[in-house]
Amino acid sequence: MAKQFTYTHGDEEISVWAEDRTEVVEKARERLDEVGVSLGDEELDDHIRVVPSPKRIKSDPEDVLMEMRKRGGLEAAEVVESGMDVGLGTGSTTAWAIAAIGWKLDDGELENVRGVATSLQSHDLARELGIPLTDVDEFDSLDVAIDGADQWDPDHPHVVKGGGASHAREKLIDSMADRLVIATDEQKTATPLSHPVPLSVLPESRNVAQEWVREQGGEPSLRYAEAKDGPLFTANGNLVVDCDFGEMDDVEGRATDLARIPGAQEHGLFVGMVDDVIYGTDDGVDSVSF
Amino acid sequence: MAKQFTYTHGDEEISVWAEDRTEVVEKARERLDEVGVSLGDEELDDHIRVVPSPKRIKSDPEDVLMEMRKRGGLEAAEVVESGMDVGLGTGSTTAWAIAAIGWKLDDGELENVRGVATSLQSHDLARELGIPLTDVDEFDSLDVAIDGADQWDPDHPHVVKGGGASHAREKLIDSMADRLVIATDEQKTATPLSHPVPLSVLPESRNVAQEWVREQGGEPSLRYAEAKDGPLFTANGNLVVDCDFGEMDDVEGRATDLARIPGAQEHGLFVGMVDDVIYGTDDGVDSVSF
Repeated sequence: MAKQFTYTHGDEEISVWAEDRTEVVEKARERLDEVGVSLGDEELDDHIRVVPSPKRIKSDPEDVLMEMRKRGGLEAAEVVESGMDVGLGTGSTTAWAIAAIGWKLDDGELENVRGVATSLQSHDLARELGIPLTDVDEFDSLDVAIDGADQWDPDHPHVVKGGGASHAREKLIDSMADRLVIATDEQKTATPLSHPVPLSVLPESRNVAQEWVREQGGEPSLRYAEAKDGPLFTANGNLVVDCDFGEMDDVEGRATDLARIPGAQEHGLFVGMVDDVIYGTDDGVDSVSF
Repeated sequence: MAKQFTYTHGDEEISVWAEDRTEVVEKARERLDEVGVSLGDEELDDHIRVVPSPKRIKSDPEDVLMEMRKRGGLEAAEVVESGMDVGLGTGSTTAWAIAAIGWKLDDGELENVRGVATSLQSHDLARELGIPLTDVDEFDSLDVAIDGADQWDPDHPHVVKGGGASHAREKLIDSMADRLVIATDEQKTATPLSHPVPLSVLPESRNVAQEWVREQGGEPSLRYAEAKDGPLFTANGNLVVDCDFGEMDDVEGRATDLARIPGAQEHGLFVGMVDDVIYGTDDGVDSVSF
């Protein structure tokens, strides 16, 4: 996981990050030298914390480190109280919520929080932050889940998810939560939803599934991997077909149709599941509740 | 695959079978000796053909070799014409349809038939019978699919499938067929359908899925393997939850509900898909068309 050094010197906040601790220390010493501050190794260490790693999320570093998303994620972490069982979502915004939960546990601001991760990358981030993790089977329900969205609708409790291809496990865990909080930013709104809907399918059904999507009026496209040749596989060995329906006036009907496709495993429409959306804006954070 | 020797001697039909050719030859010679017939090796071989193997299907030998099912399967094969692309289903009745298609190709009664199998066991049976097989990706549609059922409704074009845990690939292939012919027997009828519905689910969602089934008024039970410890896994690495809803008056609504379960991959309700049912009876074969 990435590391960040932050240090307030007068009016200035010194902040540097890197994927690796040694590199952060190097960069931090360089900046401290510039302002004439000298810190011992231990004191310097106190100012270094784990932060989301752009490398572990498919986004650009700019996306992960984007202030708007960071604000949304950090604010969403405020819903977590001591003693809660928390679903930990996937994505560049949610990663900041996970980070904030870890920092609060470290500071003693939170206690007895247990997390269950929606993806390997969320699991690894939470683990490095020291959040006690357990398996989904430990729970009948969760107090809250914090998760991201590819698009959200300020007028309806629906979101499109699955850009990170973790929507099957996300839907499982989000559906177990008494309260689903979506951490996102204001750029991702749309009424009605119109983002292409990721649909995971059995490998052998990829062609038939795409034909069904066409018959349902959508434009399917098989998602290709970028770090390997050929199509992208999910954690469950399925393929992902991104289905563009344009504006979806009947989200519920669309969800029912997608679920009927032979070989379909899970689609990225989360219908009627959202309780709150906490979103970063250009200059702050706002929220909507359903 | 199993082998069967059949030979007509006067009024008597001599018929023996075994999983292995050597054993069939041995049994055949024994029976021929009893009736005082002597056949050369080659002539004897002409009377041996591949038949469904009880070992490859989860049923008892009695089920597979049951005359009623055999009659249904053999009759269903009559829908296949030369030049057709055919979906080859799974189960003890359909296995006889596959066998009959293979024999007809061997006899020259059928030509240019291509098959696509719904399971490994159907694939292996068809292969041993010499039916030209190809992948599901070779086809945009199929002329006909012949498949079995765990329960069928003489009044509606719906069936429950998935006893053999192949329902995901079966639904994929059956949905591609211009005509779906169910080969079965008269003991499996029910109006309305009431057989427990197999639901394949991601391993991690097994508990949540069972909770949803309970909330939908069903009694779920995780299917256990018999040839290994622990639960049964499908060809796609999923688990199977058998969901008993009792009589299902609203099959379509039930199908929609099952498809909505988080982590659900495919359920065994085939709604509105059936064109014909060809079924063996105590003394013959009958059929229903929709």
